[in-house]
This record gives sequence, structure tokens and C-alpha cells, in this order.
Amino acid sequence: MSEALIRQRVEEAVKAIGAKDIEAIMSLYAPDIVSFDVGPPLGYVGSDRKRRAWQTVFAAYAGSITYEVGDLNVTTQGELAFVHSFNNVKGTLASGRTTDLWVRWTACFRRIDGVWLVVHDHVSVPADIEHGQAVLNLTPTTDPVR
Amino acid sequence: MSEALIRQRVEEAVKAIGAKDIEAIMSLYAPDIVSFDVGPPLGYVGSDRKRRAWQTVFAAYAGSITYEVGDLNVTTQGELAFVHSFNNVKGTLASGRTTDLWVRWTACFRRIDGVWLVVHDHVSVPADIEHGQAVLNLTPTTDPVR
Repeated sequence: MSEALIRQRVEEAVKAIGAKDIEAIMSLYAPDIVSFDVGPPLGYVGSDRKRRAWQTVFAAYAGSITYEVGDLNVTTQGELAFVHSFNNVKGTLASGRTTDLWVRWTACFRRIDGVWLVVHDHVSVPADIEHGQAVLNLTPTTDPVR
Repeated sequence: MSEALIRQRVEEAVKAIGAKDIEAIMSLYAPDIVSFDVGPPLGYVGSDRKRRAWQTVFAAYAGSITYEVGDLNVTTQGELAFVHSFNNVKGTLASGRTTDLWVRWTACFRRIDGVWLVVHDHVSVPADIEHGQAVLNLTPTTDPVR
């Protein structure tokens, strides 16, 4: 039951991102979310900063964003849940350049007043620490988690 | 009670890393852990691969590793828990170069046969996607999550 509700929340989030619907995507997050986001800083607290982060992403793309969640794994008990997946972000930037990027996504949920909200998320790409590079060309097809 | 046990598990892991004690650090992980690690690939499954990842880290450092967990936040209910923190890795590599790196750490635990085990972890540094760079110079002091 809880797993189905969580999966529904994730589906709603995917639709919200595709439609650049800021209110819809923000309904996913707890007010005091602690976010380890794909870009700097190391972390930030609060849905206001999460809102600004999504506004920046939405503004960076000229048109709609194609967002896809793959290999979604959900673990839940009582009022807690955590999920992880590989998420694909595709679109055309304002500069005209197209992007096609896979990120790793971990989200920790709590059911607060009956609603499943993300209280912590972690989004990243792997890094080549020795050379200071972000590794942006990986896909789950070449590297499945199953 | 559960939070205290989880914090103890994390303390034990920190000591294990400092001592390069592979059996001790491996006692943290479930056999079927799904890991989104700091370096490629996007993700991998299983404690055998986690073991090889730690063996590679341990071999990369000439002496001991100084590992520190900061801003540890623990959420737990029933048999589930998730934690997040900023972790500092310091040491001297085999090449003679010293490293001082902060990573973001998220770990999801399940209590299996009475023992709290990490079933999913996510370790990363932020990325500058536009320039393809890993951002390695950030610290929680300049950027606190509290």
C-alpha cells in the first residue's frame, strides 16, 4: 500500500518536472528538507532553496524537459520510506545545446499528516576524483543495477 | 534506542576505515547492498563489489586514513533507518600527495536478524555539470547544513 503511494508520488513528480510546474514539484518536499543536490553547495536546508534550485533548472531549458525515472526501488515501513533510481534528464538548453544526462537519485520520505514527503534527497553523478572530473557519459544500460 | 545503535554502527565504521580493517568495515553492509559510490559506475550491487571498492581505497593511501563524520542526522522507525552526513577523508596517497576531501553520505539501513545493515548508500561530491568538473574544494564550515 505505502509502496504504491510512494510510486504514485514519484510519477507525479516526473510529470511536474516535464511540465515545469513548480507548485506541483514542490508538493513533493517537506519544508525542512535537507538536500544534497547535483551541483554545489555540499548541502542545503529548506524548501525555499529547493524551489530556487528547480526554478534555475526550469529556466535553463528552452522548452520542456524529458525526465524519466528508471530502476526505481522502494523500501517502506510504517511512516518511513526510502527510494533510489537512475534518472534521465533530456532537453534543449537556452543556449541551443541538447543534454542527455543520467543521475543517481536517493530520496528519503516520511509520512507527515498522512502525506508522503521527501525529507532528504541526494542527487549526483559519479566523479573521477583524481582528475577532478564529473563523469557524465554513463547510462544504466551499460551499467545496470538489478 | 535505535538511533543510538545506528550512531554506534557509524562510529565503528569510522574506526574501521581509519584502521584499514576490511572485515570490520564490511560488517556494516547487507550482502545485496545497492551502492551509488563516489566514483564510477553509476551504481553497483553486492557486498563483493563494495569490498573491492574499499580495498582500492585502502591501497591508494600510503598510511592510515583519517575519516571523520560530521553533521550526522539519523531518522529511524521500526526496522528502517536513514542517515546523512558530511564525511571528511584525509591522508597521504601512495604518490605522496595529501588529500583532504569532503563527501556527502546518505545511508539507508534495515535491521536484519537484529543487526542494522546498510542496504543502500550514496556517496558523492557536487558537480559543475556545465563544465564537466567535480567540485572538490567545498567544506561544511563554509556551507553548513543545520
